[in-house]
Amino acid sequence: MLTHIHHINLLVRDLEAMVATYRRAFGLPEPQLETLSGRGVRTARFRIGETWLVLVQPLDPDGVPGRHLAEHGEGLFLLSLGVDDLGAAKQSLIASGTTLQGTERSGLANWRVQDLPINTFGAAQLQLCAET
Amino acid sequence: MLTHIHHINLLVRDLEAMVATYRRAFGLPEPQLETLSGRGVRTARFRIGETWLVLVQPLDPDGVPGRHLAEHGEGLFLLSLGVDDLGAAKQSLIASGTTLQGTERSGLANWRVQDLPINTFGAAQLQLCAET
Repeated sequence: MLTHIHHINLLVRDLEAMVATYRRAFGLPEPQLETLSGRGVRTARFRIGETWLVLVQPLDPDGVPGRHLAEHGEGLFLLSLGVDDLGAAKQSLIASGTTLQGTERSGLANWRVQDLPINTFGAAQLQLCAET
Repeated sequence: MLTHIHHINLLVRDLEAMVATYRRAFGLPEPQLETLSGRGVRTARFRIGETWLVLVQPLDPDGVPGRHLAEHGEGLFLLSLGVDDLGAAKQSLIASGTTLQGTERSGLANWRVQDLPINTFGAAQLQLCAET
């Protein structure tokens, strides 16, 4: 079902400063900069192999990422698992007895994402993600 | 410098229970089970695309993973960035003004790893990793 690690989100307080730190340390090219209004965040994403490393700066303190930053500080926040067929993957999880968290939503670049409950998988925020 | 996301570590309290949860939800095959005495942990790793997802159960409450579990609970713990040439990557980081955390050590399967300071990259525990 899982094809690859689609993206990894890392919460930061100052997007420009952290982009500069990552680029300087690892020789990374300019990231893609985006705003995802529905989640109340600004993002910068670097491609590393088949995975996007996404730096996320919350703009809305009441959104999910903003509340997580306030409670836990900066750090690894979300692991997004790539699937080819999101509908089939959701059905498979439901059939296994796994509960989904909310409903399908749009991520960056119109990625289709389905969150999973944070306490099911060892307090890690996992999600399924398909690009089409 | 960075070739791919080599592995992602997720701290758990009960390895067998969490392995069963991940296998059931995502239809994953049996993981590779290992013990890394130097870090005081038992691990189970699943291959997802080009990345290892490593579930880590601390055995030693005084080791780095054990202390992290006690302080922060279960969850995403470490992001390991794959490089082809660890020596060259270390030199490049030093030349960029980035400090390394401790010295090179052995990870699972004799992976060669170099930790980076946790507060440099947005409170994320990053490391470089080479398989040879």
